[in-house]
Amino acid sequence: MLIREAVSEDWRSIWPFFHAIVAAGDTFAYPTDLTEGQGRELWMLSAPKHTAVAVDESGEILGTANMYANRPGNGAHIASASYMVDPRRSGRGVGRALVEYSLEWTRAAGFRAIQFNAVVETNVHAVRLYESLGFKIVGTVPEAFNHPTEGYVALHIMHRSL
Amino acid sequence: MLIREAVSEDWRSIWPFFHAIVAAGDTFAYPTDLTEGQGRELWMLSAPKHTAVAVDESGEILGTANMYANRPGNGAHIASASYMVDPRRSGRGVGRALVEYSLEWTRAAGFRAIQFNAVVETNVHAVRLYESLGFKIVGTVPEAFNHPTEGYVALHIMHRSL
Repeated sequence: MLIREAVSEDWRSIWPFFHAIVAAGDTFAYPTDLTEGQGRELWMLSAPKHTAVAVDESGEILGTANMYANRPGNGAHIASASYMVDPRRSGRGVGRALVEYSLEWTRAAGFRAIQFNAVVETNVHAVRLYESLGFKIVGTVPEAFNHPTEGYVALHIMHRSL
Repeated sequence: MLIREAVSEDWRSIWPFFHAIVAAGDTFAYPTDLTEGQGRELWMLSAPKHTAVAVDESGEILGTANMYANRPGNGAHIASASYMVDPRRSGRGVGRALVEYSLEWTRAAGFRAIQFNAVVETNVHAVRLYESLGFKIVGTVPEAFNHPTEGYVALHIMHRSL
């Protein structure tokens, strides 16, 4: 597996699983009816923001991540990041590799920490992955996410110094 | 004191204290070098978002608030809000009146709670005001705000059900 900066042509391969994940509506607080154009604008970021893809030996895209300053101004030293793994490619450590990449990239870019603003509490796999990589839950907003099958569930704020 | 929806012409009166507050850089994680046009775009919101002003008997603007969905999609039932009081008009309960107005407005708009994402811990006056109106600190992100005189200080996430 290789992780590299995303290029514009990658979107064609990202969109199918991006769309499936967003439409499922159980992990991201994105509009569940995002069009392809809106999705591209949201996900495919330009410098100083950054979008990356994980690819296998044949160049096929397994997952993607993006990262950026969480706030402007006097909050701009904290990064945030998002990750999506093609569900057909899960279980290979793609998510872990993407988080590790984002830790390296944001550290190199001079950020002092990464903060996740909205980790759905029922997304236990993600919470455990982040915790295993040193993130801590620093806050929990009750009933902040309307899960399609679980109803109102909490969103965690997670944080890790770099 | 009256609180009413802001109109475009109000910006002329808001900008001087808005600019002073943002340039001071000790309470908002906004770019401290915001231009007037950027400030207007950031603050003067259109439906379904909402911007309000507090005015005195002579119609002079004492402070302003805005409010909006904190997230899209399955997070859109939680509002967020921001408040600015003209420092020359402080001590008259303007901030409290603006927060109370935002509680009423967001409740009427169908939101289930209000969440503040970034309350600077050294902004003790605001933290106390919010707590006195039923908000609770549900999370604290360490060193997330680079205060111009205090250095790296925490940002609180605060929350109140409606």
